[in-house]
Amino acid sequence: MDLTAYIRDVPDFPKPGILFKDIMPLLGTPAAFALAIERLAGHYPADRIDVLAAAEARGFLFAAPMALALKKPLVPLRKPGKLPGATHSFRYDLEYGSAELHVHTDAISPGARVLIVDDVLATGGTMAAACKLVEQAGGVVAGCAFLIELSFLNGRAPLTGYEVFSLISY
Amino acid sequence: MDLTAYIRDVPDFPKPGILFKDIMPLLGTPAAFALAIERLAGHYPADRIDVLAAAEARGFLFAAPMALALKKPLVPLRKPGKLPGATHSFRYDLEYGSAELHVHTDAISPGARVLIVDDVLATGGTMAAACKLVEQAGGVVAGCAFLIELSFLNGRAPLTGYEVFSLISY
Repeated sequence: MDLTAYIRDVPDFPKPGILFKDIMPLLGTPAAFALAIERLAGHYPADRIDVLAAAEARGFLFAAPMALALKKPLVPLRKPGKLPGATHSFRYDLEYGSAELHVHTDAISPGARVLIVDDVLATGGTMAAACKLVEQAGGVVAGCAFLIELSFLNGRAPLTGYEVFSLISY
Repeated sequence: MDLTAYIRDVPDFPKPGILFKDIMPLLGTPAAFALAIERLAGHYPADRIDVLAAAEARGFLFAAPMALALKKPLVPLRKPGKLPGATHSFRYDLEYGSAELHVHTDAISPGARVLIVDDVLATGGTMAAACKLVEQAGGVVAGCAFLIELSFLNGRAPLTGYEVFSLISY
């Protein structure tokens, strides 16, 4: 099964000149979604990962099934105001403005090996922030996993030093 | 296994007087998370559901594994500006201000039976909006599934006429 058949090109989104990779057809095809999860989770030996983490919202779609497949705890990284307990936070720049990710201070044990999951690696800004946040929380980044990598955006540059894996590369 | 042991009470969040039910311990305990998904998915015979839908972000954490367990398409209901294609949308009131959910116009086939999933049933506003959106998109709401129901908030009232199921009720 060729998973790229379930990724739809949408031109000029979110702005003119950008070719958006839409994962909705993959999510809408149970066999394709299941295979993507199987291949993503299968890349990581369960004894090398202690925890899975993902930034909201689309990262949750892949991290939740992967956490269940690997039988590992799942730690959501959330936008400000969403987590009820004490948090660590990390602010990062976006093309316009900035964003902030939070994690509960008790979510990650010291030295825990954390696999961070997202749907698309574009410029790498969100994943780099997630890595810094995980480290601030006491974890060790064991890997960065993506369904799709837009290699022409060079998103691996801000992730230098981390293991990066993607199922589909454009 | 008593799933309520994995729901943490956090007083005075998001504001004084509110006792927040935090699902992070459940997500952080693989056996508890897996059991919750098994019980939620197990409530729905696969031949009575065509599609699963969920509003971002926490709904994704439960809907994605349930869609895989039930082998059904997953349709994310998203905030404005997130979906690249033509969408239906539904605006609804929150305690302060309003919010809007979107779905791709081609995401739900006419007459498809849609199970809508979320983590917590509080006042029911978001789920009621999700139901209206699914109907606007041509679907039939086959059920509303929640991990937790805060029954004292009477969130079933705006969902009158829909089948509502929750694993844990407070």
